[in-house]
Amino acid sequence: MTTEINLLEQKARAAKRASRTLAVLGTRVRNECLLAMARALREKASQVLEANQEDLAAAAERGLPKAMLKRLELDEAKIAAMAEGLEAVYKLPDPIGETVAAWKRPNGLEISQVRVPLGVVGIIYESRPNVTTDATGLCLKTGNAVLLRGGSEALHSNRALVEVIAPAAYEVGIPEGSIQLIETTDREVARRMMQLNQYIDVLIPRGGAGLIETVVKTATVPVIETGVGNCHVYIDEGADLEKAVAIAVNAKVSNPSVCNAMETLLVHEEEAPEFLPRVAEALEKEGVELRGCPKTRAMLPGIREATEEDWTAEYLDLVLAVKVVTGLEEAVDHINRYGTRHSEAIITENYSRARRFLSAVDAAAVYVNTSTRFTDGFEFGFGAEIGISTQKLHARGPMGLKELTTTKYVVLGDGQVRG
Amino acid sequence: MTTEINLLEQKARAAKRASRTLAVLGTRVRNECLLAMARALREKASQVLEANQEDLAAAAERGLPKAMLKRLELDEAKIAAMAEGLEAVYKLPDPIGETVAAWKRPNGLEISQVRVPLGVVGIIYESRPNVTTDATGLCLKTGNAVLLRGGSEALHSNRALVEVIAPAAYEVGIPEGSIQLIETTDREVARRMMQLNQYIDVLIPRGGAGLIETVVKTATVPVIETGVGNCHVYIDEGADLEKAVAIAVNAKVSNPSVCNAMETLLVHEEEAPEFLPRVAEALEKEGVELRGCPKTRAMLPGIREATEEDWTAEYLDLVLAVKVVTGLEEAVDHINRYGTRHSEAIITENYSRARRFLSAVDAAAVYVNTSTRFTDGFEFGFGAEIGISTQKLHARGPMGLKELTTTKYVVLGDGQVRG
Repeated sequence: MTTEINLLEQKARAAKRASRTLAVLGTRVRNECLLAMARALREKASQVLEANQEDLAAAAERGLPKAMLKRLELDEAKIAAMAEGLEAVYKLPDPIGETVAAWKRPNGLEISQVRVPLGVVGIIYESRPNVTTDATGLCLKTGNAVLLRGGSEALHSNRALVEVIAPAAYEVGIPEGSIQLIETTDREVARRMMQLNQYIDVLIPRGGAGLIETVVKTATVPVIETGVGNCHVYIDEGADLEKAVAIAVNAKVSNPSVCNAMETLLVHEEEAPEFLPRVAEALEKEGVELRGCPKTRAMLPGIREATEEDWTAEYLDLVLAVKVVTGLEEAVDHINRYGTRHSEAIITENYSRARRFLSAVDAAAVYVNTSTRFTDGFEFGFGAEIGISTQKLHARGPMGLKELTTTKYVVLGDGQVRG
Repeated sequence: MTTEINLLEQKARAAKRASRTLAVLGTRVRNECLLAMARALREKASQVLEANQEDLAAAAERGLPKAMLKRLELDEAKIAAMAEGLEAVYKLPDPIGETVAAWKRPNGLEISQVRVPLGVVGIIYESRPNVTTDATGLCLKTGNAVLLRGGSEALHSNRALVEVIAPAAYEVGIPEGSIQLIETTDREVARRMMQLNQYIDVLIPRGGAGLIETVVKTATVPVIETGVGNCHVYIDEGADLEKAVAIAVNAKVSNPSVCNAMETLLVHEEEAPEFLPRVAEALEKEGVELRGCPKTRAMLPGIREATEEDWTAEYLDLVLAVKVVTGLEEAVDHINRYGTRHSEAIITENYSRARRFLSAVDAAAVYVNTSTRFTDGFEFGFGAEIGISTQKLHARGPMGLKELTTTKYVVLGDGQVRG
């Protein structure tokens, strides 16, 4: 154990040292390494796939659920997609060095706020090996060193990925230590990692609610909380019901396993008699199980009763809680009470109620007449996404390159002293 | 204890409820309350001063150090200054509602990023009662509810201040519960406060290194770390030594008890023989005790030896560590190793070394040819300051009104669904 903690600290210290060099590296090297890593991934895909087979075999032996095996599994196409992801990040503009603001003070001091890297970013994630290359690409593009701590079930895959991409990056001038994997999956080591404030500037957990809660509770390093989404769509009185059905189906069904999927549908009581049977038919056709409040069940006999747990659940599955409400204010109260401040939508034709919903609902993204599924760095046009923040500090909503940076104030004087 | 924790949770819940109303309140009420609170402070100054006398008597009885008594003590002038502070915040532009960015996507979605309040801000502070009104004013201006937890030694003063300003704010339309003091000073209650993620959005500790460390270690609520400053001034080869002496004296002496004061002076070995005696004379005239590295002591015989502790110390006092370095790179390494990423200055006439210092030093504010003492919300022209962040997330450097806000994405559609 002591050895493993020593190794962790050694890697973290090396990452901090690398970050000093990264911070003063120009755009060219940071960009070239993305192409070099993509090339290496393509050339050495078989090495990664072999390692992935080891993980898959071990996972099957341990009887891990199918969904997890699917997340863990790599193939040629997935590796090609990972390489393309790196190439796409290469093409994005460099946020580092941007002058965010600049002004001159009456005493002659020239102050500018300049965008700089965070330093060392710790990524704590679960079974998807693609996070290894995605996160590394985004961190290096923004001049950050990255410490990766993936799930134990993906250890061989992650190790192979780092063994392929890190030398490729170092070859073009990225300082050694910029990309490191914490290979032990011991929980005590993970705990220590989350408290290495002297070496790690930010932690970003990527995974389920349990992982995120653990990181938030354990870390003393600042955390960007990502991803838990108990999202709602509210069908207002007078809504265009055709749009409402299409949006509800899209928000639930287009990818039920992600955080921006709808988990609870709220329906105004005036629309419920017509809307509920229509939406239920469309959703059930897609295999969605409905759970309803008493009023919903009166109109949709045979569906299961929704309990308090259903209002708080992030199903990430083809299950949907449905509640009939008396109006906008009840919908807003329900969302502010049970929501996770992720993505919330109103379907309405009413101008004032749309505005009221947008201002009164406390969430990273609020929508009128469209699907919560759009909360996504690519859909927003950022060209990248390191996660979706559901906290209010630093970043809120989809996080692109800019959210992997901080700023520093540069102050130029000619002898000024403070009175 | 259970009662006190219940009371804490009750107050936090009330603050969260109030924050919902605050979030949709217009500029006018948020501004008027600042004038109303200032008026009430002036009218009821005697009530506050009486309570302050109780705190002072208790503190004197407990034998608290003079410096602490001075921080604790209020008088007519200080109360007038607190009222003026509120009036100054009244005059600042309202950051809430600002559109930070807005764009239209190819699918027709209109996305805008809008500035909104954080929600509930917890302020954990020590003996200065003026934080009570300063923080409340800044929080209400930015539409946040505030939960105040001051030091036990200032309890009577803080209670009187809240009893004066809160009713004045509520009178003009601020929702009840927006300004609350956690009156118990029990540590277990404080610990629970730092973990009330469901009610408190952000914690801002204001005080010494010990307080800040405790909050960072204990909190699960996101924290903005403020204030610890082990700041350096580096005198480069070829610096204008007259400016260098004036800046060094200003950085050390103008207010030694604050976080932006210089704690270590680094001097290029070529300048040391001339510069050290000059600066030592000027500093010793101001009562500064010097502690030096061996090379420094060779040139300034009789000063105490600087130990490893001196390089890490935030003295907040008329003490200064001095080190002779071989050049810029040693200075940068020393700063990045021992500094607290607060404020760092180079005194130089060399263009390239100035640029190298600005990019290689990792700190919230980096200076050329001026004093570290300028790291301050008022000196930067923000018109306000809730603290100086030394972390990299959310805010870095002096924090004004904008740093007490977050953003939300508002997305307007007309039926779009995600493919």
